[in-house]
Amino acid sequence: MPIADHAAVLTDEDAALIDRYFLAANYLSVGQIYLMANPLLREPLAAEQVKPRLLGHWGTTPGLNFIYAHLNRIIRERDADVLYVCGPGHGGPGMVANTWLEGSYSEIYPSIPQDAEGMGKLFRQFSFPGGIPSHAAPETPGSIHEGGELGYALVHAYGAAFDNPDLVVACVVGDGESETGPLAASWHGNVFLNPVHDGAVLPILHLNGYKIANPTIFGRMDDADLAKLFEGFGYRPIFVVIDASDDRIAAHKAMAAACDAAFDEIRAIQRDAREAGHAGMPRWPMIVMRSPKGWTGPKEVDGKRVEGFWRAHQVPIDAARTDEGHRALLEQWMRGYKPEELFDEDGALVPELRALAPQGDKRMGSTPFANGGRLRAELRRPDWRDFAPTAKVHGQEQGEATKAAGRYLAELIRLNADRRNFRIMGPDETNSNRLQAVFEQTDRVWQEPIESYDEDLATDGRVMEVLSEHLCQGWLEGYTLTGRHGLFNCYEAFVHIVDSMFNQHAKWLKVSRDLDWRRPVSSFNYLLSSHVWRQDHNGFSHQDPGFIDHVVNKKADIVRVYLPPDANTLLRTLDHCLGTYDRINVIVAGKQPAPQWLSADAAEYHCAAGLGVWTWAGNQEAGGEPDVVMACAGDVPTMETMAAVDLLRQHLPELKVRVVNVVDLMTLQPRSDHPHGIADADFDALFTTDKPVIFAYHGYPHLIHRLTYNRTNHRNLHVHGFMEEGTTTTPFDMVVRNELDRFHLAIDAIDRVPGLAVRAVEAKQHFRNGLIEHHRYVTTHGEDLPDIAGWSWPYAGATEEGRD
Amino acid sequence: MPIADHAAVLTDEDAALIDRYFLAANYLSVGQIYLMANPLLREPLAAEQVKPRLLGHWGTTPGLNFIYAHLNRIIRERDADVLYVCGPGHGGPGMVANTWLEGSYSEIYPSIPQDAEGMGKLFRQFSFPGGIPSHAAPETPGSIHEGGELGYALVHAYGAAFDNPDLVVACVVGDGESETGPLAASWHGNVFLNPVHDGAVLPILHLNGYKIANPTIFGRMDDADLAKLFEGFGYRPIFVVIDASDDRIAAHKAMAAACDAAFDEIRAIQRDAREAGHAGMPRWPMIVMRSPKGWTGPKEVDGKRVEGFWRAHQVPIDAARTDEGHRALLEQWMRGYKPEELFDEDGALVPELRALAPQGDKRMGSTPFANGGRLRAELRRPDWRDFAPTAKVHGQEQGEATKAAGRYLAELIRLNADRRNFRIMGPDETNSNRLQAVFEQTDRVWQEPIESYDEDLATDGRVMEVLSEHLCQGWLEGYTLTGRHGLFNCYEAFVHIVDSMFNQHAKWLKVSRDLDWRRPVSSFNYLLSSHVWRQDHNGFSHQDPGFIDHVVNKKADIVRVYLPPDANTLLRTLDHCLGTYDRINVIVAGKQPAPQWLSADAAEYHCAAGLGVWTWAGNQEAGGEPDVVMACAGDVPTMETMAAVDLLRQHLPELKVRVVNVVDLMTLQPRSDHPHGIADADFDALFTTDKPVIFAYHGYPHLIHRLTYNRTNHRNLHVHGFMEEGTTTTPFDMVVRNELDRFHLAIDAIDRVPGLAVRAVEAKQHFRNGLIEHHRYVTTHGEDLPDIAGWSWPYAGATEEGRD
Repeated sequence: MPIADHAAVLTDEDAALIDRYFLAANYLSVGQIYLMANPLLREPLAAEQVKPRLLGHWGTTPGLNFIYAHLNRIIRERDADVLYVCGPGHGGPGMVANTWLEGSYSEIYPSIPQDAEGMGKLFRQFSFPGGIPSHAAPETPGSIHEGGELGYALVHAYGAAFDNPDLVVACVVGDGESETGPLAASWHGNVFLNPVHDGAVLPILHLNGYKIANPTIFGRMDDADLAKLFEGFGYRPIFVVIDASDDRIAAHKAMAAACDAAFDEIRAIQRDAREAGHAGMPRWPMIVMRSPKGWTGPKEVDGKRVEGFWRAHQVPIDAARTDEGHRALLEQWMRGYKPEELFDEDGALVPELRALAPQGDKRMGSTPFANGGRLRAELRRPDWRDFAPTAKVHGQEQGEATKAAGRYLAELIRLNADRRNFRIMGPDETNSNRLQAVFEQTDRVWQEPIESYDEDLATDGRVMEVLSEHLCQGWLEGYTLTGRHGLFNCYEAFVHIVDSMFNQHAKWLKVSRDLDWRRPVSSFNYLLSSHVWRQDHNGFSHQDPGFIDHVVNKKADIVRVYLPPDANTLLRTLDHCLGTYDRINVIVAGKQPAPQWLSADAAEYHCAAGLGVWTWAGNQEAGGEPDVVMACAGDVPTMETMAAVDLLRQHLPELKVRVVNVVDLMTLQPRSDHPHGIADADFDALFTTDKPVIFAYHGYPHLIHRLTYNRTNHRNLHVHGFMEEGTTTTPFDMVVRNELDRFHLAIDAIDRVPGLAVRAVEAKQHFRNGLIEHHRYVTTHGEDLPDIAGWSWPYAGATEEGRD
Repeated sequence: MPIADHAAVLTDEDAALIDRYFLAANYLSVGQIYLMANPLLREPLAAEQVKPRLLGHWGTTPGLNFIYAHLNRIIRERDADVLYVCGPGHGGPGMVANTWLEGSYSEIYPSIPQDAEGMGKLFRQFSFPGGIPSHAAPETPGSIHEGGELGYALVHAYGAAFDNPDLVVACVVGDGESETGPLAASWHGNVFLNPVHDGAVLPILHLNGYKIANPTIFGRMDDADLAKLFEGFGYRPIFVVIDASDDRIAAHKAMAAACDAAFDEIRAIQRDAREAGHAGMPRWPMIVMRSPKGWTGPKEVDGKRVEGFWRAHQVPIDAARTDEGHRALLEQWMRGYKPEELFDEDGALVPELRALAPQGDKRMGSTPFANGGRLRAELRRPDWRDFAPTAKVHGQEQGEATKAAGRYLAELIRLNADRRNFRIMGPDETNSNRLQAVFEQTDRVWQEPIESYDEDLATDGRVMEVLSEHLCQGWLEGYTLTGRHGLFNCYEAFVHIVDSMFNQHAKWLKVSRDLDWRRPVSSFNYLLSSHVWRQDHNGFSHQDPGFIDHVVNKKADIVRVYLPPDANTLLRTLDHCLGTYDRINVIVAGKQPAPQWLSADAAEYHCAAGLGVWTWAGNQEAGGEPDVVMACAGDVPTMETMAAVDLLRQHLPELKVRVVNVVDLMTLQPRSDHPHGIADADFDALFTTDKPVIFAYHGYPHLIHRLTYNRTNHRNLHVHGFMEEGTTTTPFDMVVRNELDRFHLAIDAIDRVPGLAVRAVEAKQHFRNGLIEHHRYVTTHGEDLPDIAGWSWPYAGATEEGRD
């Protein structure tokens, strides 16, 4: 644990140089938080030069700057590729300061040059209206991680390291962040990191002792417990303990020795694995660094402890504009860094410090790994039609949609095997979601012991399974943000576990898209199978379709939601999504045997339109208006709608029914709200302007109302969907409980067509009897009526497809 | 780590008895999964006696049964109160089996007696339509935890243990569940558990090696790493290693010794702390138990490994109804338990085994700690009026709503101090959310070292702060489900982290309410401060009001959403919520200085109605119809609406404006959808049937449309809210970016009143100039226009209140 020989790594002179670089970064960090003018303090600090609203976080920043300076040395000396993941994202001033010092910032933002004027703008823009955010946001060079919502630094770091064999991801984890669940689970990333083909993650646990107003759990643990804990997780912790004393030279020597030791070990592990072959899960190094919160800042303000305490967290001197004493303290603090010795006449960093930064793309603010679009290669996608069930006759073949998708994905994995740029993540549900064909081409990756009887488990593989939706989500975010591709397959109900991570990723993409210098990254793709209607065996806790609602709250240009009703529409949708960028695509699709509605050609046409009339399914006269529109979105709602149409055609053949199926949910919105929205005239043509529309929808009904709120015929939309009625039961009983079944749909259609209810008494009675019969049968026999379970669409021979 | 002397704890005879009890539970578990008749196998097993749909999870069940049997022994011998939290909730058959064996089940459900007929019904009902769920659901006696969505067992266990000094919560944590983030963080519960005043948690990490189709991370870790890991977390792990051999007697002896050791240590820790005083964080014992997945089940099926492998996870023999070989295997498996030696002629457990179960409320299926309503005492609530700002003149006093709430909560804590039945949870944000007055009465609880300079930190305290929303949520769930009360205060954006936990808790409550034997528990109360409009300093990642949308998807009788516009309405709302039960209340309230609109009496009247006209704010003639309704919900929208009305009254005095404020969002829904919904006639009276309504809303605008979809005047509702435009900026710039500011609202009002737009050119130009001036000022000075920042409602003297 203790590091061998500090003195050997850094001379006093070298340490002093690094210290000055560190102080320069600190100076710039404080300046950003406080100043709107007089950046180099070449005149006495005046009240109006202090920002009126002081926003930013000082406490974590010096630690981040310290680490950054030491990584710079490592990069220069070893010509290493290092990506800096800044867990305490609120330490934004530090990230901005360092990328400005090394020149990355000014190259990306030429209006903020490396001189006094640039420094002035750099200070002013920070946390200022029209300027830049206070956190390490998409605007920050070198960042793939905001860290506003703490917990995801380490999982992002692992995601970035997979399949990047020469990269070291230095991941600063704050001790506040360490208390979160997702971070706690992220330490297990080492179980999935292959030392031959992947890069390395160097976690740097930054213990500065306090959160906003509290000590941290990890900060108060003793070194012995910390060592045990991380050894238990499989790491080799290296401790760097910096107390509040001012012997910074010793601190730099200790940190340099720790970094050298860590990088030596990483290279040794990789060399051994790559030359001698895999020999069990390596004990990767990590650094545990204790340093005082707000280090080098004021020790006390107004007689209250600040440095090394939680009061250093945000703005330690809060009345610097209005209170002369505070302002003098601020000025004294900043002048203590001796800016005149750090920056030259023009305001640029002095040459001997400038020489400490790496060059070109090796700079952490310029590394392409933090701007993944620069590294992204298009995925080689097979022709999805090669995996399409024939579906020659509408609805008479049975197929399992996700199984077909599995075969497509297996071929996709084969095609891209040499590029190693595609992964499938899932919480142990790849088989359960019926994607198992992928295991013909690859394995689940795993570095812990593998037994002879294990299946599809290997030290190398494209499938990552861990019982943590947080890890799946975070890994894929890190993986795509560094220029690769992937798919997250998940139970629909439990994807809510990552609601908040989805939010943060959507926000990241929204902002990134407006930054020209950020090149597009691959979309984040969800495949939600084992959905609400097919969790009859697990019951109520597994039944929740609300993720779609959550997604739709985000900016329209980021999100897409698809509900393919069968295998071919799923294949076409999946293939499409894997070719897109800077989006979040949500696909909800079933895994159970179900009728196949469309041939490959029909699926292509239907999915391209996003929605359309299934003329072969309805019985309206050509070109005429129907009496009722039976609309559907989702595989189970589509099947129930088709069965309802079947019932209606049998029992009320005179009723003119039109069937509309919706694959791309966003088509329902007005075009002004979403780029996929169809024109009002088209909507009217499909859904009529005045006829009843019985809409069978996969999720909570209100969403359809919300999307169609401004459409002409919205008043006549009667939506059936999930009404939060669930339990362990049969699949058909699930839809009955929520009135989404064929009988309820058919009865509703009759009730809504004016005048029909009276004429159709007999038909309605028949349908009601169906419900009674169902109830009797299912509670007696514990399975669905054979008529239901074995039902297939009976009207063969129709060939028309797509939009009318 | 090794346990001293196994032989001393259990004789061979005792072990054999416990083993038979264990086998009886296993028999009943298998029977539930498979059989719909012939429960005691008194005739050869026939095809039609096997359920047609086999649903359930065998793999984890024997381990759960084994643990249950050993806890029974401990309870009997020590007269202990033990609550069993079953992390692998899918092991539902085991929990049902054990509570039936001990008699709890039949007492709660008399239709399922302890005889052959009862056993038959017990088997048939499991995972059967109209029967019971497959998981340990609310229907399951002795459960406060479903575990369908894995990850929350340990946090529930700690929540249950707080302030229950004589209780031991035995918490089985599965090794799959251990991979989740929330569970990983839950180990830190020991940092918050006070050995003097709280009970104990005994975590039992159940390593059965596999998830659905994969090994588990923890299952494949070696004992040395596991020991280090949990020692690092501060526990003393006791290992019980059961291999696949059939020496179950040895296994029972090992487990008995481990349980004795653990309970001895728990009592020793408690005795020391209670007699000699607190002496640092104790090293609580925990048990690490390795046992084969599907233990005692078939070793192989169709030549494939089952016992001790992931194939044992669900239904190990899947074609028992249709395949004779499979059915024979099932029968052989079940007969191997020798039911004829376990159950008597009537089908009841034989007396010598029956004697192994505890009695009465000591039975884990009958303990009142698992039916918290039985233990719940009403909270003593102070008179909230004692903490009410005077607000003599509408809108001219400034106040901080949550600060007033903090003073109320401080008094509430004082009043209930002796009962120790109220806690406040928060992710280190009690101060940030301005509730700091509570620290005059209590402290933050903490068992790690406390430094002399720490503030409001103590080994005992009513406030729990940890940087994990998961832990806050889970602790409070566990705390309220065991009969106590609490409040979770959280940043609005980051409460999305617990979306999925909210879902599960709402589902739990929904089902519980329909079970007569489950007595009502206190509501789960959220106070969301630091909301979307007041995260201007942290930026976009902290700006998200979508939790409300998420909440509204759940069953109407469970959820309530309140948006009090000032301190008095917040006080009244908070006080109301703390008196309710079996609900989830969400209160969104500001923490910043803001105008106070209503006196205490007016707040009482307004909150009781849930919404109402503020006649003193508008200028409509008495009893007449307004030209426009300015509606608002939320503190910031209310302030902007009032300012817009001020602008309109100044610049267009002839415009008749009505102001409607909404506190209880659910009032907007039709009464048929929510019990709080107001009648259509009342809605029409408030919002008119045809006048434009400019609705300023706290969150995403569509929610107001959704709630009012069926109201007469919904077409004229024009909602302003959060449009996902955010960054680090000033508070007023935030509302401008989302067009929720006074100028946009006033302009919209003018545009919507027919004919007015032309007449009001000058006024509109004035408002547009306001926006321009704002933009110029904020980007130059970095703060809001003094006119905006210092604005207060200018029309004094009005006295009318409430609904017109």
